[in-house]
Parts: sequence; structure tokens; C-alpha cells
Amino acid sequence: MRHFYFDHNATAPLSAAARASLVACLDEVYGNASSIHHFGQAAKQKLEMARRQVAARLGAKPKEIVFVSGGTEADNLALRGIVAPGQHVVTSTIEHPAVLNTCAALGVDVTYVAADSSGLVDPGDVARALRPNTALVSVIHANNELGTVQPIAEIARIARDAGAYFHSDGVQAFGKIPVDVNALGVDLYSISGHKIGAPKGIGALYVREGTPLRAIASGGHHERERRPGTENVPGAVALGIAAETADWTSVAALRDRLESGILARIASASLNGARAERIPNTSNIRFDAIEGEALLISLDLRGFAVSSGAACSSGAVEPSHVLIAIGLTREQARSSIRFSLGPENTEEQVDALIEAVADSVRHLRRISTEVPAHA
Amino acid sequence: MRHFYFDHNATAPLSAAARASLVACLDEVYGNASSIHHFGQAAKQKLEMARRQVAARLGAKPKEIVFVSGGTEADNLALRGIVAPGQHVVTSTIEHPAVLNTCAALGVDVTYVAADSSGLVDPGDVARALRPNTALVSVIHANNELGTVQPIAEIARIARDAGAYFHSDGVQAFGKIPVDVNALGVDLYSISGHKIGAPKGIGALYVREGTPLRAIASGGHHERERRPGTENVPGAVALGIAAETADWTSVAALRDRLESGILARIASASLNGARAERIPNTSNIRFDAIEGEALLISLDLRGFAVSSGAACSSGAVEPSHVLIAIGLTREQARSSIRFSLGPENTEEQVDALIEAVADSVRHLRRISTEVPAHA
Repeated sequence: MRHFYFDHNATAPLSAAARASLVACLDEVYGNASSIHHFGQAAKQKLEMARRQVAARLGAKPKEIVFVSGGTEADNLALRGIVAPGQHVVTSTIEHPAVLNTCAALGVDVTYVAADSSGLVDPGDVARALRPNTALVSVIHANNELGTVQPIAEIARIARDAGAYFHSDGVQAFGKIPVDVNALGVDLYSISGHKIGAPKGIGALYVREGTPLRAIASGGHHERERRPGTENVPGAVALGIAAETADWTSVAALRDRLESGILARIASASLNGARAERIPNTSNIRFDAIEGEALLISLDLRGFAVSSGAACSSGAVEPSHVLIAIGLTREQARSSIRFSLGPENTEEQVDALIEAVADSVRHLRRISTEVPAHA
Repeated sequence: MRHFYFDHNATAPLSAAARASLVACLDEVYGNASSIHHFGQAAKQKLEMARRQVAARLGAKPKEIVFVSGGTEADNLALRGIVAPGQHVVTSTIEHPAVLNTCAALGVDVTYVAADSSGLVDPGDVARALRPNTALVSVIHANNELGTVQPIAEIARIARDAGAYFHSDGVQAFGKIPVDVNALGVDLYSISGHKIGAPKGIGALYVREGTPLRAIASGGHHERERRPGTENVPGAVALGIAAETADWTSVAALRDRLESGILARIASASLNGARAERIPNTSNIRFDAIEGEALLISLDLRGFAVSSGAACSSGAVEPSHVLIAIGLTREQARSSIRFSLGPENTEEQVDALIEAVADSVRHLRRISTEVPAHA
């Protein structure tokens, strides 16, 4: 059976361009970028080219890019590397666990600003949450479950006007919508390779020049003392190429085709989160009186991969904290499915998925209607 | 000009077996190992196969393997994840910076046990350094600069008999000499992929069952709550294959050929560290009255990559802390070169390198002799 992938927010396949650059680098450039001989210098050149490519996509300076192992490490570095004991942090209730759980582990006071029912954070709420000792405000750029894009520029201005640093988890936004660190006004911005066609195991943290970031691990002098460990040059090279080439704009039409198809075909299906302010590839839909995980499994058996929550929370019995945070009941949250598309999806796949969702929902509703008769 | 690589302790080229498994995984398995659909389960299967392969090479249980981004992260996790405020740590003066600098950052009392002139730590010194509140003893298995293999089993027994946990940085030992975590008696053991033919960006920490390791980053529930972040499945797969296939035993003959050739041909060349207790691929030689970095550059111009210290310290103006620690003068330390070979080196390359070293040393000595005449 052929399987089709609609779970790009969990991870995306390698893009052809990133794959080519990665394999070439693996085969040709194996030096340690910190070595001073021929092999080391070849690796260093590739690494610095990648840094320029990532910086260019962000509107940043190359030296403001710190390569790390992924989005989770970038978030941890941003938060743990800035906040000190006795300080205060403001974040939102719809952050990724890498931010939420790091905030909880910091050992400082944290204010969690709520998102509204459309999945958007109100900048005014952030302003009201600030305290004289607020060191950092961290608000996710595009939410991983809903795809909603937050008013980052406005929130960043409020935070920085108050003397706090501003961080945004851009893992789901980078490469999918335009990101300019100066237009946004962020001090710190997390990105991940494997969400946009680069391999797993590489990511980066943008750190605005002058931001007093402390390393959170100890070792050699790599990455201007901000992240020790032998540089993952092939990973960085692929991230650089992915940053240069990622183009998800065409995905919006596919996503809209899928979303309107499902909403038109299926009674009691409704959209979670704002329709307008979203990244182009994500649609989160709830199917009343359907168990989301049962729908996921039914679709998987029909060859379609979707998600009933963030992959990093899979296996958890709790419903999505993001859906609860925007006001859904636990039952509604459990009846929701995230569809996240990518550049390699096609209209034919989308149309087949709409049919499969309709069939699965019909089947699952029939089962749930029949059960009482047998009970 | 052809370039030949004799700096494997900095990083090694991908092995053919690891490359094949990596590329196949990159092409075929792109799911998130935490997703519950078809793509996720395929990734999960690959990840757990890799975990079994790494565990098998260590004589460990699969669940005792935590995949991380590399050796530096493994060392940081082992030390920061065990030691708490008010406790005491024992380590050696010849550790890698990932251990030395992490010890310094822990904010606890640390006793640094000296190595002798042959580069070996005396277990009796470790015993004498123990205190009632010693939480952890960390001693490197094979030193990265000298290649000397420490009496880990004896040191581990002393540490554990005293109620302390024992960690060893096995980055340079794993894959090059037999490593059995039970025979060694280690509680924690760090390994790195790119030193033995797997790619950069992947490593692992062995954590003996029951060892109360705390995660040092926050996020999802990956790796049994010990290391958050989307699993680097292709990296882990390649590490698993490298663990299964790495065979560096044949390198010893090449290393000995290189070492005896250099020592026979060049006056005032002498070996740093113990001749016997070494990993098979490393030789650290000092050339009296020669600047090591000048020799490195001269060899690089002749097409041979060697090292004048650990890559992670390159660019540092200080001489090697390891060579100083075993009693060399700063001048002697600066006149030393590390040759580290790998399975793909050949006798022809070794013989050519011996000639190149002899030529370079002759040339550099002539220059240094001539300088006073012009001065």
C-alpha cells in the first residue's frame, strides 16, 4: 500500500536540494571545522557558507547564528542562557513543550499569557504581565498544532521597550513564511532543520548581537563560546541550503483545498484556530463525537499519516494543552486532528485524503452509534 | 595535490557501512519516531535497532542508551545530570575540555587527580581524593591527545565501593578497543559517532539502569525523559552500524610503523605517553627545538593532516593542557604533534608521511639554525 504524508509539522522529508548538499558534504568534507589543516579549513568554509545562508534567510548577520542540534536545544539555550535566578519570565499557554517545560524548570516566576479562542496571543496581555524584573518574554511565532501566527513584532516591541529580551520559537514559521529578525524585533529566534527539508539533528538559534547569552553546556570554544561540541558540518550545510531554497507558499492552496473539502463533506467538522493568521501548511480540525486517535489510526490504515497532537506528546494520555488553552473541552480536544502539508503533497493526494477522512468518519460514527445497541 | 588524513582523533571520515545505512535511512525513513502512524513507527523501529546495536557493542541493555548530539553533550549530561550542589567530584587533569570545563562549571568542589609522566592516572590517587560527599568520579577512558588507556575497571571499583557514581568519557576508546560497561564497571559512559565512522551530530550516553540521571534540557518525553528533542534517526542508525562494524585493530600496525619510522629517522624525536597502554591509532611525538604548529603547517603543505593539539582547542595560544599535565615543559608541549590514524590509511601513506616529517623537520631546523646568522 502507498502511504501519503500529511504530518510535516512533526517532521518533513529531506528536500532534494538539502539531500544533494548533505550527501556531497558527507562524501567530500569530513574534516573537523576547528582543525587548522586543509581538511579542517574545507569544513570551516562549508560551515561558514551555511551560516551565511541561514543568516540571509533571517535578515541576520552570520555571527548571530549559533548552530545547535535542533529546535528543543535552541529553545533551551535561549531561555536557560538568558534568565538568572530571581528574574521573571513571560510566555504563553500555547508554547511548544520545549519552551513551556524549560520555563517551568528555570526556577523563577513565570507568567503564562493565555491565547484567545482563535489561538492568538493579545499583545496587551503581554504588556500587562510585565514586571520590573522581567528578563525575557518568549512567544512562539507559529504554533505547531494550530499553525496560528502570533503578532510577534508588536509583542517584541512591548517586551523590549520594557527592557526585557524577546525570544520566539520559530521552528514552524521559519522557511514557511517570511521571517526577518529586524522587522520582527526579536533578540533570540529558534529554528529547526528537519521541519523544512534539512535533516534531523541540526538547528540554530539566532542571537542578536550584544545579547548576553550564556552557554548551557561546557567544552571547547566552538560557535563563539556559545555552543561547544564538534560542529555538525553536513547538517549545517543542509540547513543552509534548506534555508536558501525552502518555499512553502504553494502549500497554502493544497491546505485550503483539503480544509474546505473536509469542512464541506463532513457534518460537525470545524476548524480550530484562526483561519487567516496561519502558516500555509497547517489545518487543525475537530470532528465532533469522533475520537481523534481512532480517526488517526483509521486514516493510517488507509495510507494517510496525520497527527492527533504534537509528535513530542504522542503516547501521552492528556489531550493537547494547546487546544485546551484556547478553550476547547477535553472531549473537543480529543476529537481534533492536525493536518500539516508539505511541498511534495499533490492535489490527487489531497483529494484522496478528503475521501478517506469522509469514509473514516462515517465508519467511526457508525461504530459509535452501534455500540449502545450491543451494550 | 592529494591530501592524506592522519587526524582521526579530531574526526574520522564516514565508514562505507555507516554511509550506506545513513543514506538509505535519509531516503526511506523520514518519519518522527514519536509519531504513531506508519511513518513514525518505521522511524521508531530503525531507532530501536540502532539502540540495540550500540548497546550490544557496549555489553549494555538497549534502554541504558541515551542518544544525544555528540560526545560533548554526553559528557555534560553525565556530569550535570548527576552532581548536585554541595557535592564533590573527582576527575583527572588529562580530561577532555568537555569534562574539565563542565566540572569547573558545576559550582561544586572538584579534585583533579594528576596523571604520571606516561599519561596514566594512578587508581590510588583517586582513592585518596574521595570524600564522604563525593557524588561522581569521572576519568577519561582513552585520552584524546596521547591515546593512553586508563585503568578504568580499577578506578570504577574504587569509586563505586565508596558510593560514588563513575563516569568515563569513552569518545576515543569506543570502537577502537573492546569496551564492556560491566567489565569496566562504569555507571555512565560517553560515546561519539564521528570519531568512529558515523556522522557528526550524533553520540550517546550509556546510563546504567537505576542511575538517577536528571535531564539537562526540557521539552518532550523522548529517550525515556532523559534527552528531549526529535530523535536524530538517520544519525542514530549510522551510529548503530558504526558500532556494529567499527574495527580499528589493524590500525595498530600502521601506527607502529609510523611511530618507529619517525623515531628511527629523526634525531631528538621522542614519544609522549605510555607506549603500551594505548588505543591502536594514536601516537604523540615531540620534536625537540621544533615548533609543533610550524611542523603541522609544513606537513599540511605537503598534503598530510596532523594535529598539534585537540581540534577543540585549535587556535588557542596555550600549549596542550594534557602535555603540561604529564610534566612536559611548555616548550616541549609546543613541539609535539599528534598523529592519529584510521582504518583507511595505508602503508604507502604512512611511509610517505615519515618522509614528509623527516623533510619538514630538517627544513625547520635549518631555518631555526639560520635565523641567528641573519639576526
